[in-house]
This record gives sequence, C-alpha cells and structure tokens, in this order.
Amino acid sequence: MRLATLRDGTADGRLILVSPDGGHYAFAPVATLQQAVEDWASAAPALRAISDFPAKLDVTQLAAPLPRAWQWLDGSAYESHGDLMQKVFSMDPVETDRPLMYQGVSDRFYGPYDDVKFPDEELGIDFEGEFGVIVDAVPMGVTPQQAMEHIRLIVQINDWSLRALAGPEMKTGFGWIQAKPPCSMAPFAITPDELGDGWRNGRVCIDLLVDWNGDRFGAANGEPMGYGFHELAAHAARTRDLAAGTVIGSGTVSNANFREVGSSCIAERRGIEIVDEGAARTPFMSFGDRVRMEGRGPGGRPPFGILEQRIVKG
Amino acid sequence: MRLATLRDGTADGRLILVSPDGGHYAFAPVATLQQAVEDWASAAPALRAISDFPAKLDVTQLAAPLPRAWQWLDGSAYESHGDLMQKVFSMDPVETDRPLMYQGVSDRFYGPYDDVKFPDEELGIDFEGEFGVIVDAVPMGVTPQQAMEHIRLIVQINDWSLRALAGPEMKTGFGWIQAKPPCSMAPFAITPDELGDGWRNGRVCIDLLVDWNGDRFGAANGEPMGYGFHELAAHAARTRDLAAGTVIGSGTVSNANFREVGSSCIAERRGIEIVDEGAARTPFMSFGDRVRMEGRGPGGRPPFGILEQRIVKG
Repeated sequence: MRLATLRDGTADGRLILVSPDGGHYAFAPVATLQQAVEDWASAAPALRAISDFPAKLDVTQLAAPLPRAWQWLDGSAYESHGDLMQKVFSMDPVETDRPLMYQGVSDRFYGPYDDVKFPDEELGIDFEGEFGVIVDAVPMGVTPQQAMEHIRLIVQINDWSLRALAGPEMKTGFGWIQAKPPCSMAPFAITPDELGDGWRNGRVCIDLLVDWNGDRFGAANGEPMGYGFHELAAHAARTRDLAAGTVIGSGTVSNANFREVGSSCIAERRGIEIVDEGAARTPFMSFGDRVRMEGRGPGGRPPFGILEQRIVKG
Repeated sequence: MRLATLRDGTADGRLILVSPDGGHYAFAPVATLQQAVEDWASAAPALRAISDFPAKLDVTQLAAPLPRAWQWLDGSAYESHGDLMQKVFSMDPVETDRPLMYQGVSDRFYGPYDDVKFPDEELGIDFEGEFGVIVDAVPMGVTPQQAMEHIRLIVQINDWSLRALAGPEMKTGFGWIQAKPPCSMAPFAITPDELGDGWRNGRVCIDLLVDWNGDRFGAANGEPMGYGFHELAAHAARTRDLAAGTVIGSGTVSNANFREVGSSCIAERRGIEIVDEGAARTPFMSFGDRVRMEGRGPGGRPPFGILEQRIVKG
C-alpha cells in the first residue's frame, strides 16, 4: 500500500490511499496517517480492502505523508558517510559500540514540492537523502526482532542540514538544534511489501537517485546500513516507550564505492575532495537551487514518488 | 492565571482554570492547553473572564498541564551547573558563545504524581529540577525582545536523566537519546503575572525546593540564568519557526553558592564531592525513591503546585 496526505487546511491533512498505478486515490477510512498508525491493526485491513480509486491524484496537492510527528529520531547508520563527515568537520572518529542517533525537530515535515526556507546562504545549506520508517507504539526495552514487527511504513526523507552550524553544535555534546531545521518527506509512505525483496533485514535495499539542479549527484544504495531499522528502533526504545507515529531515519545513504555512485549530500562530496585533492571545492546550496530525490524500486518505478524542492530565503 | 489539565481518557486531557486559592476549578472554554496556545489572543481573554470555579480540584487527577508537546528544547543556562557537570563527566569545558540546548523527547510529559518507570537502577537515575516556558508560534529569526512577547506560560519540570548513558552519548556529538527519557511537569502552567516581580528579565526568580526521600536536597534560586528564556527562544528560532506549544527549559537550576543552597540534581552534588573530597559518594536513585519539587513563589505559596514522584522498575 502507498499512503499519502492531501492538504485540507488542517495541520495533519487528509489520509488517502494511492492506486497501484500512482495516478488515482481513495480517501482512507481513517482521517490521518497518525490515526492509522495509532490503530494499525484496524486501519491496515480497512485500507487493504479498498479497490476503487475514484479521484485523480495531483501530487502538487500533497503534504508530507506524516505532516508532523510526535518524534523524529535520525540515525547515522552508513559507515562511509560517517568517515567522510569526520573529514569535513576535522573531528576524531566517534568511538561507540551503539548506533549513532539524534533527536530532531518533528513538529513539521515539509511536503514533497514545498519551497524550503532558510535564513542565510552562508550557513552551508545542504540536503541529505535518507530512508526512514514509521513505527506504531513500541514498548520500552524491546529487542530488535520485536521492534521489526512495529515497523509499519517506510518513507523517503531529505534531512536538511546547515553545515556551518553543525560542527560547533557537535562540539558542545548537546547535539544539533540550529543545524537541523525541519526535514522534507517524499509523497508516499509505503508498506514494506511494496519494496518486494528490496526490503531485507530491516534495510531499504534500493538505489536513491539524487539530482542537484538537474545533474545527477548520487545513486547510492540503501543496503549497507551498519544497523537495520529494527536495531535503530530498539536502540531508541531502550529507556523510553516510542509513541505511535515515531519516525526513525537511516542517516544519509552512502556507499563505500562513493567515487562510483556519488553521494546523497554535498558535505560528503566535500569530504571526498578533501581526501583526494586536499581541499573542498563544491559549494553548498544557493537560494533558488533545486534538489530532486527518487528511490528506484522494483520495476524501475519510484515507490515513494518524487521529492523535489527549491530552497528560498526565509 | 493557573492552568491545569484533567485526565479524561484522551492523550491531551481537558484544560481547566484553577481558582486563586488553588482548591477549585472551572473548565476552560478551549478543550486543551495546546489549543489555547495556538490561539492565545482569543483564549487568554476568555480564560481571564472566568470568575466562577464550581468544582473541587483533586490534584491526583491531573495530567501534566501539557501532556505532550510538538517540541521540547532544554537549555543548560546555569553556569555553576555546567561547571560541576564537567567534573562529573571528566569533560573539557564546553567552549561556545551561544546558549547550550538539546532537543528532547516531547511525546509525553508525565503528570505531577505519576510513577516514573526506568529499566534499570544501574543507569544512574537522576532528577533535574528546572523551570520552563511555553511559547505560542514563534517565527524564524526573531530577536530576544520579540521572543519575549511569545512567552505565554511558565512551568516547572523534572528532566529525568540517566547519567551512566549521558557521558558516552555526549562524546558522540549527537546529543542524548537514551540518557533523556520523558520529563515530568508540575500541576500548573501559569501566566508570568502570577510570579509578580519573581518574573524578571526572562527569568523565574524564585527558589526551587527539592526534597529527595523527604530530605531537603536543594533550594536554588532561578535567577542566575546566563541567558533568559527570551534569549533561549530566539536561539532556538534562528533557523526554524517554533510551533505553538513548544516547551523551552532552563536546564537544572543551580547557584554559585551551591554549598549553601544545595543542588537540583544528584549529579551536581557528586560534582561537588569530587571537587571537595576527590570522589563522588552520593549514589543515584533506587527504585521506590521519591523526589518532590516545589517552587516557592510570592507569599510563600507554590505557584506551580507540587511535583512529587516515585520511580519504579519499567
């Protein structure tokens, strides 16, 4: 199933089920995605029973599938990304035997075609292409195997980042506030079966195509996460219950053969330049720039739809 | 005005206005505190017009005044607290010319008399007595002076912390996930005028009495914040809009004369012991322990009510 949220003037929008061909939709029997994940045992069969998609879908009318969430936890599960970011920030390797994860702002996820506002180009505006999952209520202390059963939906995310602020905030140990404004979500939240065997071991094993101002920038595959989403969810739930609708991100999709496949964020390319050429030369984004992200699923189609945005001065 | 939230079986509860004597209440004209701060210009006069408080208040039926929030940002604005915590964690001083702040979990605030569950005593269970504010919608880029006008309510918070997990998480630079499970809130969210001249320069200038298992542990005054709440709000809003209902905390209330007034968290006392005696000797909390926190307002009364909780094994 592919779920989306139509703007209707409310903060949470109106949940719809998208037709298999992606061109039509039906209203869901529950009003919002948040309500659906709060009672997935009832919502899922009711959604699966829908076979008639009477309305034509205009993707420009879509909000994020979950326009706001009670919690957003973003991992950093790709080792090659972490290695390159340490070059960018001139930091020592992070020594930990656990998943890396930060708590991000969740009161807004931009819709897939929304303009995204930032205060200043000098802040080092960057995109980060990611996959994520939405869980239902997860009790404190679950195992990764138990957490797997709570993964209800998969999403595709652009985790906007302000690089000039990121290093100084990391050095405080308090994590990021200013460096991590709200993220964007691709149009469709999908059930794992939509990926076929592209969903394996708690990982989204498909390519993420990233284009910056019309040029291919990256096509990394989601598979090589050091921890699967079920392990990230169990890590998050060690000392807390996770509210239904919690969103958990993979961190920037990155592959060890980054020189071949490219990157899902600018900072990583700058890290490669530092390694190869001694200095970064690719600038961060300018107002008016566009970035487009497309997961390439089974049959070559984009299971999450297209996430394409322009940045503007706020 | 003092606002509180009665449990009614819903996640957000039912907003009430508490009588001046604290013993009675009236239902608010809007259902929830979240709705009130989303339209404060309408809600505040309607609340102020209430003069009849027909029902007797049973504080044990109260949820947190805001039982869940779209955002919880906690500062660390007391210099003496920061200094002592560096002793506890054997860390270098944090060098920054900006407020320290982390993004915390906001999907639940425990009510004032709820038992609070943790997985394991070995995690170093600690309380942190704080003050906080609730803002209405704050646009990105406001000045501290502009942010002051968005502070609608003041609250008193216990920011539960798991110290054994805090140091390792800080060292990653990603901030805290496991070390900072949900917080608790005292019964009443109050408008700043309730504090009289105890509300000065964006600071809650009253004592916070903290008792652990019936013994006075601290009575620090809220005044010496290095940054006022208006400055914390402007810091948070530098690169994002703040959703109405965002809660911003002061960090652990702490005074430079901590040997006289005591502390608002155990870790700080352990820091003093490290300085004075070379090693910490006060243990963290055990299951069954109780902590009680009372702000001492004008006339000696507790403007936020009493926050008193027991910790239990989850």
